[in-house]
Amino acid sequence: MAILHSYPFCPHSRFARLILAETGLATELVEEKPWERRIPFLEMNPAGTLPVLVDDSGLAVPGARGIAGYLDDVQGEGLNGRRLLPQNIAQRVEVRRLLDWFLGKFHEEVSDYLATEKIYKRFMPAELGGGPPDMGAIRAARTNVRYHLKYIGFLIAQRNWLAGDQMTYADLAAAAHLSVVDYLGDVPWDENETAKEWYARVKSRPSFRALLADRVPGMAPAEHYGNLDF
Amino acid sequence: MAILHSYPFCPHSRFARLILAETGLATELVEEKPWERRIPFLEMNPAGTLPVLVDDSGLAVPGARGIAGYLDDVQGEGLNGRRLLPQNIAQRVEVRRLLDWFLGKFHEEVSDYLATEKIYKRFMPAELGGGPPDMGAIRAARTNVRYHLKYIGFLIAQRNWLAGDQMTYADLAAAAHLSVVDYLGDVPWDENETAKEWYARVKSRPSFRALLADRVPGMAPAEHYGNLDF
Repeated sequence: MAILHSYPFCPHSRFARLILAETGLATELVEEKPWERRIPFLEMNPAGTLPVLVDDSGLAVPGARGIAGYLDDVQGEGLNGRRLLPQNIAQRVEVRRLLDWFLGKFHEEVSDYLATEKIYKRFMPAELGGGPPDMGAIRAARTNVRYHLKYIGFLIAQRNWLAGDQMTYADLAAAAHLSVVDYLGDVPWDENETAKEWYARVKSRPSFRALLADRVPGMAPAEHYGNLDF
Repeated sequence: MAILHSYPFCPHSRFARLILAETGLATELVEEKPWERRIPFLEMNPAGTLPVLVDDSGLAVPGARGIAGYLDDVQGEGLNGRRLLPQNIAQRVEVRRLLDWFLGKFHEEVSDYLATEKIYKRFMPAELGGGPPDMGAIRAARTNVRYHLKYIGFLIAQRNWLAGDQMTYADLAAAAHLSVVDYLGDVPWDENETAKEWYARVKSRPSFRALLADRVPGMAPAEHYGNLDF
């Protein structure tokens, strides 16, 4: 069986879990603590980043974008209407634009700060950067998440899904990154009903269940985290 | 004719120029100063980042990865042996891994610091972050570039090109980002002959000529910058 090396609250790992579940590739999860920089892990992915998929043939596929590309190469055309990177050129451009937005911009401005400060630093040894959270970084992320939520609402006001008529990698990237922020109670859902309705739709998918069952040891999720009708 | 909105010393723009030249898509360059955040530009790419390709049909394709994906979608199979994202699955995985490495990691650790501190800040108004360079950032980048050069040498010691037997997006991404650092004289080529030989090969390609002709107003390039046999 394929193996996904991942960390439960790494937003990129969550994206990989969602797209693997949506495309039906059975995968065993193996937890990797990226801050440990273990040699066998670095041999698989010299950049030391998560996630890494190892397929049945032993091929190591690193990175959220790498795995998305690989799945589309291997399975894409067979998925027909369920393809997460659509066939149409303009739609593919839009999906890639939004992948950059959520895996890049949203990560840098919101989910990386919050995951690192509130979760990772609880478990990292002090000599590797663990310790109390940087409140300045948390405040910045909480401010930034608001315009991202507005942007999601803006797109969903015009379209059924983020990149167009059908669900794509863009929705799963956005929802995966938001899900970490949502666990922490830092998404101001009340500010945008349209974005909230879209998130409830993605969250209700069977592919999302495993994410909703994850827990940070010693830190309960926001009350509505597992609630599909929040 | 297609238009590429770009900035001469933006490393991502340089990557787009190289892959457009290699795949033979005639493109007109239009200079965009990304710090101005002009409304018509943000309408094309809400993220405000460079480069953006506008194709003959008026479709805006933002981002280095977006343009690479678009070119492969539109022209890939027709390019046969000259395809920059090869057909073989394992090779595609390796190209994407190295694209993440150079467009992501190298950019964050080296080329973004140097381009911003030494070039962009000369031309940005003070209220948008312009001014004297941050020497700490420059020193960090100069330290980081050394292990990247070693990594290129390590790969080229085993392979003809960075990702395997043929030249791919990976080589052009690495060379585009290095070219900005090289203009500034900050690549310690003497430390790695293997990496230097590889760069001389990429630099000799006709696609590279336009990059070697670019000049930062008021700042001469390193002496060897335009020299193909440096």
